[in-house]
Amino acid sequence: MVEIPDSHPRKRSLLSRQKIVEGSLRGLLADSAMIAHGRGEAFDYLLGERTTDSARLAIREAASRLRSAEDPVISVNGNTVLLAGKGALRLAAFLGCPIEVNLYYRTPERVSGLLSLLEEQRVSVLEETEPTGFEGDWRASVRNVPLLGGSPDFKIEGLEGPRSHCTEEGIGSADSILVPLEDGDRCEALVNLDKEVIVIDLNPLSRSSRMATVTIVDEVSRAFDGMLADLLSESNSVPSEWDNASSIIDSLNEIKEFLSKR
Amino acid sequence: MVEIPDSHPRKRSLLSRQKIVEGSLRGLLADSAMIAHGRGEAFDYLLGERTTDSARLAIREAASRLRSAEDPVISVNGNTVLLAGKGALRLAAFLGCPIEVNLYYRTPERVSGLLSLLEEQRVSVLEETEPTGFEGDWRASVRNVPLLGGSPDFKIEGLEGPRSHCTEEGIGSADSILVPLEDGDRCEALVNLDKEVIVIDLNPLSRSSRMATVTIVDEVSRAFDGMLADLLSESNSVPSEWDNASSIIDSLNEIKEFLSKR
Repeated sequence: MVEIPDSHPRKRSLLSRQKIVEGSLRGLLADSAMIAHGRGEAFDYLLGERTTDSARLAIREAASRLRSAEDPVISVNGNTVLLAGKGALRLAAFLGCPIEVNLYYRTPERVSGLLSLLEEQRVSVLEETEPTGFEGDWRASVRNVPLLGGSPDFKIEGLEGPRSHCTEEGIGSADSILVPLEDGDRCEALVNLDKEVIVIDLNPLSRSSRMATVTIVDEVSRAFDGMLADLLSESNSVPSEWDNASSIIDSLNEIKEFLSKR
Repeated sequence: MVEIPDSHPRKRSLLSRQKIVEGSLRGLLADSAMIAHGRGEAFDYLLGERTTDSARLAIREAASRLRSAEDPVISVNGNTVLLAGKGALRLAAFLGCPIEVNLYYRTPERVSGLLSLLEEQRVSVLEETEPTGFEGDWRASVRNVPLLGGSPDFKIEGLEGPRSHCTEEGIGSADSILVPLEDGDRCEALVNLDKEVIVIDLNPLSRSSRMATVTIVDEVSRAFDGMLADLLSESNSVPSEWDNASSIIDSLNEIKEFLSKR
């Protein structure tokens, strides 16, 4: 691994890139996952590699909706586990919800490799200092996060092939699904099943972004961290009448502002 | 390989992605080449996946400068050979100039693999219909394009390590260098040697884009094809006083217009 000096202005982006390259070399990613990551890098660059004001509002909305849901679930793919698996575990521990590995190009090897990596990440999270503001037994909550996806026993209606597979306990029975870096077809199928779909996607123009109930246009680990911080700090924010189309337009305007400053 | 229907609006982009994935599986690319391609995809998407008006002007300027140069050279990396090797060969045949394989992460295997691929591409180009407007023996010109880079015998002053290596016959003695998808440091070093550096880069904000003498903000195969068409059709366009900074601002404005139409 190349050492990146702390002073490098894009250190966090370069570290993320290394995680993806290493995950790919370990066989955890589909062939085109690195290309998808590169697209994300470009959009993140255009957002200034920070959580923008509109993303901040979307994060708050998403957090309150996930807290209000009966059966939330966090759906993760390879890139999400590599970039933000620990963030997903912390968020799931707070919400008391499962994490489901759900892959577009599903192979048993990749699913089990990602589930093993999540188990390793769980060990790291258990070694961390307990977050301030959590009521209850934090470590028990982390230990109890169900990691699903190894034995799919359910199908997402309206989809064909391996990407329709999911678990009944997770995505199958969820009323609210947090899906970072999702494919557009699956996002649409989930919305058509009347589920609340919260998407994290750096491309505000992707089909997932436009299909979702709430779209967070932000890098996935920043978005997870932001949601957890909101959940830990606020006790009574409630879901609003959310205008997702206008939130996406705000994101586009933030990119335009960035370009205007160059 | 997945079959992409002709009707798919983004067919060309998806075919390019397949070429990169296959090249990576064949060991022709560095680990992060797919990530770089993904960044390019995102910027191309924001440009509308077409040659914009400002890119059109930059292509014309680049074509006339390459024609006026004493010793032009086309420097190519793995992504360029995979996406546009045949376009590079046609352009080099018109200009009577060499193509040099020059890699950031140089390994002998990748250099020789890319040189072999260029030889295969040369065979394909020789099977094509001769382009209209070329004066001379087209097939002889294609056959005579020197393919350099296998035995570097020269160094780019101001750079350290393997990426400083080049050939004297090619980059070493060139007065004008066409460098698609270049790294910023090498672009800067070449400019500091008083060479004319023509960059093709989809990111108008990259350091290469900002360092170059002429920046073509366009997809590499479209840019090569556009330059060849200009050279074949025009006989007396001459290099202008080129304002590269304002050309880049025009590209940024084209992205902003694209975003405004969403």
